[in-house]
Amino acid sequence: MRERVLSGMRPTGPLHLGHLHGVLRNWLELQEKYECFYFVADWHALTTEYENPRRIPDFTRELLLEWLSVGLDPQKSVLFVQSAIKEHAELYLLFGMIVPVSWLERNPTYKDMLQNLEHKDLSTYGFLGYPVLQAADILIYRARKVPVGVDQLPHLELTREIARRFNYFYGEDFFALPEPLLSQEAAKVPGIDGRKMSKSYGNAIFLNDSEEEVRRKVLSMVTDTARPRKSDPGDPENRCVAFQLIRLYTPPERLAEIIADCKRALLGCKDCKQELAERVLEALRPIRERRARLESRKGLLEEIMTEGNRRAREVASQTLAEVRETLWGRPYF
Amino acid sequence: MRERVLSGMRPTGPLHLGHLHGVLRNWLELQEKYECFYFVADWHALTTEYENPRRIPDFTRELLLEWLSVGLDPQKSVLFVQSAIKEHAELYLLFGMIVPVSWLERNPTYKDMLQNLEHKDLSTYGFLGYPVLQAADILIYRARKVPVGVDQLPHLELTREIARRFNYFYGEDFFALPEPLLSQEAAKVPGIDGRKMSKSYGNAIFLNDSEEEVRRKVLSMVTDTARPRKSDPGDPENRCVAFQLIRLYTPPERLAEIIADCKRALLGCKDCKQELAERVLEALRPIRERRARLESRKGLLEEIMTEGNRRAREVASQTLAEVRETLWGRPYF
Ligand code: SF4
Ligand code: SF4
Repeated sequence: MRERVLSGMRPTGPLHLGHLHGVLRNWLELQEKYECFYFVADWHALTTEYENPRRIPDFTRELLLEWLSVGLDPQKSVLFVQSAIKEHAELYLLFGMIVPVSWLERNPTYKDMLQNLEHKDLSTYGFLGYPVLQAADILIYRARKVPVGVDQLPHLELTREIARRFNYFYGEDFFALPEPLLSQEAAKVPGIDGRKMSKSYGNAIFLNDSEEEVRRKVLSMVTDTARPRKSDPGDPENRCVAFQLIRLYTPPERLAEIIADCKRALLGCKDCKQELAERVLEALRPIRERRARLESRKGLLEEIMTEGNRRAREVASQTLAEVRETLWGRPYF
Repeated sequence: MRERVLSGMRPTGPLHLGHLHGVLRNWLELQEKYECFYFVADWHALTTEYENPRRIPDFTRELLLEWLSVGLDPQKSVLFVQSAIKEHAELYLLFGMIVPVSWLERNPTYKDMLQNLEHKDLSTYGFLGYPVLQAADILIYRARKVPVGVDQLPHLELTREIARRFNYFYGEDFFALPEPLLSQEAAKVPGIDGRKMSKSYGNAIFLNDSEEEVRRKVLSMVTDTARPRKSDPGDPENRCVAFQLIRLYTPPERLAEIIADCKRALLGCKDCKQELAERVLEALRPIRERRARLESRKGLLEEIMTEGNRRAREVASQTLAEVRETLWGRPYF
C-alpha cells in the first residue's frame, strides 16, 4: 500500500510559473509514488483574507481547475476542499485543548509573519492557531509524509509535537508521526523584474495568461543590463534575469548554444526572449488545452470536487470517530 | 414568540445544593417564560479536564439526568450536548479568524483563571479561546438573552463584540446582539464547613446523596462555635453556618421561631440541624423520585438526549448555512 502524503494550497489567486516549478511539478511526481491528498486550504486563506473572503469560492474553483490542468489526476489523488470537511474544525478544536499557547507563540513562522505583515491586523486567534489547524489537516488523514521546504520544517515539527502530546494523553501510538518529504531544491523562478515571482509584485506569468500576455511579459523581462547592444557580449548566467527562465525551458544542447552565442555577442536579447516565449508557450500549451477540455464539460469540475470531498470525508470521519473514542474513552457523540 | 435563552453547564461532576440554588432554580423559572436552550458544555469541560476526559461522558449523562430530575422539561426546553453539535466547532473556527488575540488576553476571567489555577498547565490555545467557543455557543442559536452573573458580564460583552465584528465584516445585522439576563442575586449556599459549597472542597451536599449522607452532612455542619452548650444563647444570623441553609429551607414563621429560640438558648444545635436535615430531604424528595422514575425507564434518557440534540442541530445547521453564505458571499460548502 502506498504511503499517504498530504499537502495543500491556499486559494488566494491564480497560479503562476513560480507555483508550477516550486510546488506543482513536485506534486505531480508524488502522485505517481504516493497516495496523495491535496486540498484547497480555504479556511487557512481566511487567516489573511478575512476582511474580504468573498473571492475565495472563485479562487477555490479556479485552483482545482488549475491543478487538474497541470495534470493532477483525480483517479490517482484525492483533491478536495478543506472547508467541505467539517471534521477538520472539530479536530482543530480538540487539539487546541492540549496545545500550550507558548508553543504557538515561539513558532518562527508566526513571529516572521507577524513582523512582515505588521500593517494587517493579523494577530487574530485563528492566525495564532494556524499550526493547530495544520496539524488537524495532516493528522486527520493519518498522512505519513508531508512535502515541505526547509523553512517549513518547524511547522511540521509542531504537528509532530501535537501528535505526540495527543498520544501521551489519550492513546499511545494513536497518531503515527508524519515525516517531512524534503523536496529537492525547487527551481527558483524569477518574476519578469528579477524579483521572486509573486502575484503581489505584479511580475508573474500566470498559467492562464493568454498567449499574447505570455509573449508580452517574457519580452519585457530584464536581461543583461550591461549589454545595451547586441554587439556587446553578455553574461547570461550572472547578469540576465530572462536566462533563469531560459534555463528551465530550453533543452541542454540549445541552452549551451545560447550561452555561447550570448557571450560572443552573436545573439540579441529580443530574439533570445522571443524564442523563450515560444518555449514557455509550448510548455503551457498542454495545460491550456487540458483546461479548455475541462471547462467545456459543464459540471465536470463540480463532479470531481464532490467525489474528492467524499473520499476525503470518508477518511476524516473515520479518524474522528477513532479520536472521539480514544479521547472520551468510548464511543460518544 | 418567546425569546430564546441560552445557557450551559460543564459536566465536571455531580450537582449539589449550590448548583440547585445558584443556577437550576433560575433555569426552571426561565423555562416558563423563554424558549430555553440548555446545553452540556462537554467541549468546554476539556479546557480544564483535558488530561483526564474519560469521566466526561458519564458526567454528561448524569448532568442531563439531574437536570430532568430537578424539573427541566424537554417539552419546554431544548436540552442538548455541545459536542454532539459539530457546527459549534465550525463557528468557533470561523470566529477565531476575526478575533484579535488581544481581546482574549485582556479578558478578566482569563487573567483570573490563569492566576488561580497556576498549578495546572492551563495556558492552552483552547483555554485562551474559551470566549470564542462561548460566542459560537450563543450566536449559533441566535439567542437573545443569556443568564449571567455580574462577574460573567465581560464574557458576554466579548460575545457581543465578536457578533459586532462579524456583522461589520460580513453582513450588517446578521447577528442580533444577545443581552444579559441578570439573575437576581442567587442565594449563597454554604458548604458544611462554611466555605462556598464546592465539590473540590469536599463540603457539598449532592442532589443524589443518599438520605443517610444528607443527614450526616447536615448534622456535621458548623454552627455558632461561640455556643458550645445549648444553654448558651446563639447568634444564628451572624455566626451559624447551618443557619444559612436553614434560611433557605424553612418557612418564615418557623424561621422566626428558630431565630428566637436559638437566641434565647431554647433550641439545641443538634435538634435544630435534625429539623433542617428533614427539610432538606423533603425538598430533595421530588428530585430523587423523578430521578428514580427516569432511571427505571431504560433508554428514556438517551431518547431525550437524542431529541434535544436533533432540535439543537436543526437550528445550528440553519445558522451555519446562513453564516457560510454571508461570509463567502454565496452558498458554499
Ligand atoms: S541574449 Fe538571452 S541570455 Fe543573453 S542577455 Fe540577452 S536574454 Fe539574456
Ligand atoms: S440552634 Fe440552629 S440556628 Fe442556632 S446556632 Fe444552633 S444550628 Fe445554628
